[in-house]
Amino acid sequence: MTTPVVCVVGRSGTGKTTLLEKLIAELKRRGYRVGTIKHNTHGFEMDTPGKDSWRHAQAGSDVVVVASPHKLALIERLERELTLDEIAARIKNVDIIITEGYKRSDKPKIEVFRKELGSELLIPRDELIAVVTNQPFALDIPQFDLNDVEGLASFIEKLFLAEKPMLNRTSL
Amino acid sequence: MTTPVVCVVGRSGTGKTTLLEKLIAELKRRGYRVGTIKHNTHGFEMDTPGKDSWRHAQAGSDVVVVASPHKLALIERLERELTLDEIAARIKNVDIIITEGYKRSDKPKIEVFRKELGSELLIPRDELIAVVTNQPFALDIPQFDLNDVEGLASFIEKLFLAEKPMLNRTSL
Repeated sequence: MTTPVVCVVGRSGTGKTTLLEKLIAELKRRGYRVGTIKHNTHGFEMDTPGKDSWRHAQAGSDVVVVASPHKLALIERLERELTLDEIAARIKNVDIIITEGYKRSDKPKIEVFRKELGSELLIPRDELIAVVTNQPFALDIPQFDLNDVEGLASFIEKLFLAEKPMLNRTSL
Repeated sequence: MTTPVVCVVGRSGTGKTTLLEKLIAELKRRGYRVGTIKHNTHGFEMDTPGKDSWRHAQAGSDVVVVASPHKLALIERLERELTLDEIAARIKNVDIIITEGYKRSDKPKIEVFRKELGSELLIPRDELIAVVTNQPFALDIPQFDLNDVEGLASFIEKLFLAEKPMLNRTSL
């Protein structure tokens, strides 16, 4: 069983992270377990210099995990960029995975659009399942207002999620 | 194929992290891919407030991944503490996994001992495969000086690793 993956894409500054925050919160309210992937093309720092896990990584560890009773963190050095499918396969026990970015992936995409930042959509029509926008397009595709997170969540729920969230599961 | 897991345990202050740093570096020098797990019983912070990934987590995301071409970070909210086997199963593409802590696990253990910090070993003899110590014990078990990282690495190599590191693998 593979977990559905949906990509939230759009130009920089359109408010992808803000939309994702609201969408995550709404899906959580409906009882789903949600995973998110942020695509970062420039690299990033996650750990804090001096901590034991940071020292493991500095010493050359290829994969560093910090595990507590309530949280697990895993940082992996990659020899090549992983595909979205490979990353998704590492996310366990969620009902849906939403990415911020990955506009070149082959997954269904939702574009966030603001008329102030461009006149055309970034993504070809046939790759989009919906647009979240402050300007309606003459396209046969579901369109949601930037504030209509409930509508968007219902659309995603209908398309990708069973009617009932998978509660009370024991397997991880 | 399961990856071998070895636990480095010992009282606080014996120098577990320092030993692990040297051991990781030595195993890397010999061409192995190494994963490490730090057991943190009190919880920890990994992400930075304000960053997109932090905002995903704050919004309720159960698993947050940040992926760049060279690094992947995954932070997962747990409903219960994972077993060491469950954590090890999430670490891909390494030859060996070394933990810092997990003294109650059922994995082979190496105790780091300093005579200044106690008179007896922390771990029962039958759970130990070796002791790294500045005081020899009258025990039928391999013992290594605190500075003999090469000896310890050779011992681990012989016990858990094929003669040649698994280079040039393509699968992740």
